[in-house]
Amino acid sequence: MHRIVTRPDELIQHAVAGNQRAIARLATRLENDPLAAPAIASELYPHSGRAHVIGITGPPGVGKSSLLASLAAELSSRGKRLAIVAVDPSSPRSGGATLGDRIRMSESALDPNVFVRSLASRDRSDGLAPSVADLVLLFDAAGYDYVAVETVGSGQDQLEISDLVHTTVLVQIPGAGDSVQLLKAGAMEIADIYVVNKADLPGASRVSRDIRMILSLSPSGPGEWDPSIVPTSVVDGTGFGKLADEIDAHYRFLESNGRLADRKLRIARSELKRAITRRTSLDQPDIRDLVDRVVTQLSNREIVPEDAARTVLRALLHEAPDR
Amino acid sequence: MHRIVTRPDELIQHAVAGNQRAIARLATRLENDPLAAPAIASELYPHSGRAHVIGITGPPGVGKSSLLASLAAELSSRGKRLAIVAVDPSSPRSGGATLGDRIRMSESALDPNVFVRSLASRDRSDGLAPSVADLVLLFDAAGYDYVAVETVGSGQDQLEISDLVHTTVLVQIPGAGDSVQLLKAGAMEIADIYVVNKADLPGASRVSRDIRMILSLSPSGPGEWDPSIVPTSVVDGTGFGKLADEIDAHYRFLESNGRLADRKLRIARSELKRAITRRTSLDQPDIRDLVDRVVTQLSNREIVPEDAARTVLRALLHEAPDR
Repeated sequence: MHRIVTRPDELIQHAVAGNQRAIARLATRLENDPLAAPAIASELYPHSGRAHVIGITGPPGVGKSSLLASLAAELSSRGKRLAIVAVDPSSPRSGGATLGDRIRMSESALDPNVFVRSLASRDRSDGLAPSVADLVLLFDAAGYDYVAVETVGSGQDQLEISDLVHTTVLVQIPGAGDSVQLLKAGAMEIADIYVVNKADLPGASRVSRDIRMILSLSPSGPGEWDPSIVPTSVVDGTGFGKLADEIDAHYRFLESNGRLADRKLRIARSELKRAITRRTSLDQPDIRDLVDRVVTQLSNREIVPEDAARTVLRALLHEAPDR
Repeated sequence: MHRIVTRPDELIQHAVAGNQRAIARLATRLENDPLAAPAIASELYPHSGRAHVIGITGPPGVGKSSLLASLAAELSSRGKRLAIVAVDPSSPRSGGATLGDRIRMSESALDPNVFVRSLASRDRSDGLAPSVADLVLLFDAAGYDYVAVETVGSGQDQLEISDLVHTTVLVQIPGAGDSVQLLKAGAMEIADIYVVNKADLPGASRVSRDIRMILSLSPSGPGEWDPSIVPTSVVDGTGFGKLADEIDAHYRFLESNGRLADRKLRIARSELKRAITRRTSLDQPDIRDLVDRVVTQLSNREIVPEDAARTVLRALLHEAPDR
């Protein structure tokens, strides 16, 4: 905590005021300094809770990045601000930024209403990097109207995304077997809006039909959101007005019937879980010796796991450990 | 803790003494009663630490189950006892047990030296079920010489498996693209023994050659384990003596140069992590009201995540919460 008291406080003030340099620097710190992140997140937290957080998922190659660039331009033309947190472990990396990022950045960098941040994926196979939620919090606190999280959306990611966002957009493209994969991945259960991107390609209407068919297997009840299907094409620029409209419509739907409060509770719950997981990380320097000792005792069967956990948790709460 | 004091104590005694019915009943309880599991695990823990724990991973369809049945028969003929914890989310399920299980059970059920336990996979996309580690602990405490964990070994599973076992066996079969997939999955970095199963099929020697080639890209240094490649075939029964020998050789290697102690520390560390995760689960009934309250406060931005985490952790340690 100590080392981040001075400068970060100012940084946070500037970031909350919308200063893009301060936002960028805080983002870097949140991503690279996991020990400082919890305190920064807690500073940002009171300023957050106003952005519309959107998850953009779909398999690699469906054009999520260029789709987001077009959506950002559309929202910007409406006077709205969009921040994008991009996580795509399948992208070829070069020095932390992908080719796609650079293309996207060059399109969006000149637009003060759009902020793109790519997370260097660290070959994690265990879902989203913890800093994804931190970055969402940062952009939310910095006053962006929308924060979009772009991810490949494998099983684990997808679940975590749904604990982070208000609206989930699933992107598909024309191509054989897509709808079957959709079903298999269980992705159909959580998307609020379906985008059929590259709608200029042949087969696009078949994909829409397939999605509609799959959706009809579990129809929305009265008062439930009826997921929409939006064809888009970056080539001829169609669909982005409709997509922006649907995204707004979904938020209004949530607001109108009390579901937004439920979703915010779910998000807060996952925030609590995340804070507890961080608070109980064994990697914290001040408990390293204790952890080593306890692990050795466990390995020698001198103590049992429950007692070991209690000892470490006590120490983490800065109380005297009982051994 | 209270509700499991009476009967389970006896059950644990019987299980530790090797009573198969008691083992089966404890296994069911560990799998189905997550709230009771930590206490049971802590009771079992002092009796554990002697089994040689083996991870058997590989893509679906490589014949891990029948391979394990043959390995079990080989070990049994040597007077050794093997317990198998099978986790295969891709298996078609029917009433909790898969077809493969029933076949395997029918082969191994009559052998008192072999115990097979299938985990009903609950469509988890987030890696191994927590009860996998509990079942390993149970069979270890019950005196089995070997405990084999059979899993599909997707990225996340694979990493968790390596935190649970002494020896990792990766199973492959002849077929195009296998070795490339191996490389992609990063599986090559953690296997101690490579099995080329269905070695009676054409192309088996090519798979062995591919594995050897990939291994040669990062050769073992002096004093390091040199992974072995074992062709096996259930059809003609070859390779299982060699596989059993290699599994034993790997354990002796670990023992001989102090690496076993290191590995046991790593396993104990993951045991501690698991105990902390369980201890801090938000699902525990006695903190449910507090969690609901704190989540609501978070959602309203009345508190910040760090304080929320501290409050819940204090309550979990049965201390007075500070709000």
